[in-house]
Amino acid sequence: MTRVRADINISLDGYTSGGHDVENPMGQDWGRLMAAYTSTRTMQERVFGDTTGAGTTSTEDDYARAYFEGVGAEIMGAGMFGLHTFPDDPDWEGWWGDEPPFDMPVYVLTHAAPRPSLTKGGTTFHFRSGAIKDVLAEAVASADGQDVRIGGGASTARDFLLAGLVDDLHVAIAPIVLGRGNRFWDGLEGLELTHQVTTEVAESGTTHVTFRR
Amino acid sequence: MTRVRADINISLDGYTSGGHDVENPMGQDWGRLMAAYTSTRTMQERVFGDTTGAGTTSTEDDYARAYFEGVGAEIMGAGMFGLHTFPDDPDWEGWWGDEPPFDMPVYVLTHAAPRPSLTKGGTTFHFRSGAIKDVLAEAVASADGQDVRIGGGASTARDFLLAGLVDDLHVAIAPIVLGRGNRFWDGLEGLELTHQVTTEVAESGTTHVTFRR
Repeated sequence: MTRVRADINISLDGYTSGGHDVENPMGQDWGRLMAAYTSTRTMQERVFGDTTGAGTTSTEDDYARAYFEGVGAEIMGAGMFGLHTFPDDPDWEGWWGDEPPFDMPVYVLTHAAPRPSLTKGGTTFHFRSGAIKDVLAEAVASADGQDVRIGGGASTARDFLLAGLVDDLHVAIAPIVLGRGNRFWDGLEGLELTHQVTTEVAESGTTHVTFRR
Repeated sequence: MTRVRADINISLDGYTSGGHDVENPMGQDWGRLMAAYTSTRTMQERVFGDTTGAGTTSTEDDYARAYFEGVGAEIMGAGMFGLHTFPDDPDWEGWWGDEPPFDMPVYVLTHAAPRPSLTKGGTTFHFRSGAIKDVLAEAVASADGQDVRIGGGASTARDFLLAGLVDDLHVAIAPIVLGRGNRFWDGLEGLELTHQVTTEVAESGTTHVTFRR
């Protein structure tokens, strides 16, 4: 049965990466925030195309592998696709290049002017402006029994959590204090009452908190 | 050599206990926030006077024991002593009863009218309105080579951290999302650059993050 999953990376003080600009589409703090994650063998292979077997294994890599397993469709915010960076350029095709690491249908939430679906490698991006539950229903149908991942950013994941639409939330907390960015936890008080919480620390010092219902 | 230590208990979203009122001097969320801690054998014995050996042992209790070991003086905010609750009553002697669990000199930071030192059991409370570094110097002198603990609340601990006066910070993060209270992390960005961070999860699901310089 399809489960709806969300993965988010934050600092000890609850921020996702801040300091977004054209040269840092994921935010200036993204590198530090994601260092343990991007160092894993799975991420090196799946996202950075390094097939030499480089990268860390063990706990952190287990989470990275789980991130990619059993997902049939993804939903992401306009910012994560890149729509906010050149909002007036209809030819702008986002940050993900010619071979996006998704290889599945990706639904991009946007209130900008409608644009046609865009296929890059094995990934097709669909742009949707409807209610999130309707977009989710479409994603579930296209996932064909596999899971749907809410890819981010923080506000998109939070919107789905606040609407009670997320079954599994994985929060990776890097052992740094950022002091800026998007605050992830706001409005999520009591999440431990609807979901079961487990906590684990990886070799990197990252704390992995999982909420599951 | 004396080290300056601070211990703080927060939620995943970085709050210390909120909802303070006369019936809940530590805040309405204090019980949930501290549950794993107050359940330990050490806390049962030291704070609640239960000498029957009741209470949890293992990781959580290791931290509880360390909390009490090697401390020669404590500094706390006016709120933690209880001064904010009946500010106009000079006879009000705070929340700690006739046998406070300190058994050492305790320096209470306050800008209220001067009041004489107060001895209860083995604890003497001194009320100080001076600069925190001067109060710290006095506490260090009275600790006689043992450590000085910054007892809380969150804003007191943060004041000493922001002033660069804390050598060891222990943050216990309960696996709950409170959504209200005092925000602990504000202003502490980059603390991982001045202190070495280690992270550990206890059986309770509480994450213990230690900053040490």
